Amino acid sequence: MKPRYFISVIGASKATAADLKVAEEVGRELAEHGVAVVCGGAGGVMEAVCRGAVEAGGLTIGIIPGEHREQANPYVQIPIVTGLGYSRNSIVAKSGQAVIAIGGSYGTLSEIAFARISGIPVIGIETWQLSRCGETDDFIIRATSAYEAVAMAIAKIQETAE
Amino acid sequence: MKPRYFISVIGASKATAADLKVAEEVGRELAEHGVAVVCGGAGGVMEAVCRGAVEAGGLTIGIIPGEHREQANPYVQIPIVTGLGYSRNSIVAKSGQAVIAIGGSYGTLSEIAFARISGIPVIGIETWQLSRCGETDDFIIRATSAYEAVAMAIAKIQETAE
Amino acid sequence: MKPRYFISVIGASKATAADLKVAEEVGRELAEHGVAVVCGGAGGVMEAVCRGAVEAGGLTIGIIPGEHREQANPYVQIPIVTGLGYSRNSIVAKSGQAVIAIGGSYGTLSEIAFARISGIPVIGIETWQLSRCGETDDFIIRATSAYEAVAMAIAKIQETAE
Amino acid sequence: MKPRYFISVIGASKATAADLKVAEEVGRELAEHGVAVVCGGAGGVMEAVCRGAVEAGGLTIGIIPGEHREQANPYVQIPIVTGLGYSRNSIVAKSGQAVIAIGGSYGTLSEIAFARISGIPVIGIETWQLSRCGETDDFIIRATSAYEAVAMAIAKIQETAE
Repeated sequence: MKPRYFISVIGASKATAADLKVAEEVGRELAEHGVAVVCGGAGGVMEAVCRGAVEAGGLTIGIIPGEHREQANPYVQIPIVTGLGYSRNSIVAKSGQAVIAIGGSYGTLSEIAFARISGIPVIGIETWQLSRCGETDDFIIRATSAYEAVAMAIAKIQETAE
Repeated sequence: MKPRYFISVIGASKATAADLKVAEEVGRELAEHGVAVVCGGAGGVMEAVCRGAVEAGGLTIGIIPGEHREQANPYVQIPIVTGLGYSRNSIVAKSGQAVIAIGGSYGTLSEIAFARISGIPVIGIETWQLSRCGETDDFIIRATSAYEAVAMAIAKIQETAE
Repeated sequence: MKPRYFISVIGASKATAADLKVAEEVGRELAEHGVAVVCGGAGGVMEAVCRGAVEAGGLTIGIIPGEHREQANPYVQIPIVTGLGYSRNSIVAKSGQAVIAIGGSYGTLSEIAFARISGIPVIGIETWQLSRCGETDDFIIRATSAYEAVAMAIAKIQETAE
Repeated sequence: MKPRYFISVIGASKATAADLKVAEEVGRELAEHGVAVVCGGAGGVMEAVCRGAVEAGGLTIGIIPGEHREQANPYVQIPIVTGLGYSRNSIVAKSGQAVIAIGGSYGTLSEIAFARISGIPVIGIETWQLSRCGETDDFIIRATSAYEAVAMAIAKIQETAE
């Protein structure tokens, strides 16, 4: 019953068709590897990743910003009702052992930041690029496909566990 | 995969033997009714209810106060990592469709209050008694056994859904 | 510039005329003792205590539930914008060195609980009465007037500091 | 008594000497313009900006991550005790009408993200650079001195108010 791992998938509620397609593939890949999906529970990337996971028999957890469980997208199986608004983003980030960022808005950026505060690895597909004082951007590990992102995320978790 | 209902079980990490026994029975009863357990993820009542649920094949969700998933008691299957300290109590309360309070400390009292703010029914076994300006205490529905508490909680959820 | 003490004043946004009168007196008393008022920043008791404090030259801090500083009542001088909804109640409780509860709803009850979790003394005027397993109610110190409540709260802070 | 504006100043607790010098100047400039400083209440940039503000007669508000008001740096006049850990960062960002970012760590990045979620202008001095899908970085307005940053922040607030 206990999932093998928990991976958070983050991205905007208003997303491009390409982002939604990748998110759904990521959800499917995660489910096939026995990994539970954690997300913000809303639409867009969050709904797509949950749909992909559920269709492949996976487990989906939605950390909802509002006060009502009905606000979860229909593919969320475990709704966590926070009432914290966007401040729930820190919980989304921390509840994964790795984070996969797809595209993304400022909400996604806040989740990337919280993951990194906690030392949680972030794998990004077409997401924010960060630099600081000329430092090379190694804050986010880059992937170019759902398959690669999931493989990298699992490898990172296993590496940390050693 | 999706549980039938979600019920939060609240109580202190330092609990009496009687409270722990009831908590374990509540966990078992909930599992047998296909209801997922939501709790604060720590020890005492929280651990006992998770143990009872897991042993009866149920699903357990722990909303953890700290920053590390390892802080969850060993019977939590789905750890939600908040980093919010006791402020995570509002999430524990809101993530249930009903709340069962067993014994209890000030943390339990805060969860009772948050459940009532959100209109979520609270069933209590040997827990806080509240009164306000001489009003009779109907803020918490009283139960005297695990069996009765779970039956009342499920009935309340079904009543609300109608 | 730095206030002598910080005292949180809690109570409902929908309050009785008697509660509002007491709240305004508490605000005035606090200001006259050089104590800053912390509150939830909304209407009812929160507005009345801020009005009393401001009219007596005091300092008022409002921990706002919503996303916009304009939601603060007009007597809040320092608005803190949380976006946390009712979950901001824990911050209201913790930011006082003592808490004065006037009347009260479930929100007030949650703040009493959070104050007690943190070991912060709570002085109550016509507020919740709590008991647990037949224990006498010494969870809240009772006062019968604004004057008495403020004197008790300051005495408690000074006692703790020794 | 009510400050003219509230501006949040964000930056790391472990900061370079150059960042600390700029932060202290920003604090002084803000105080001289009658603007209250909001910050995370800890050391480094947060302490430097508060010291600058206090020395110039300003008002300083610290949104503290921990459970104890004593954790505030000695130049915080109004400590807000959240107990939320890094999740208090969203409150730091939202409680300013503009945000000035100096240098910065991942915590600073999370605050920049939350400010932008809320549409609050961010002025940056030697801080993160962001880009997304090749878009030019106009997410953060660049300043090269404390004087310029404060002038830009105040201008942005006045522009929004019109």
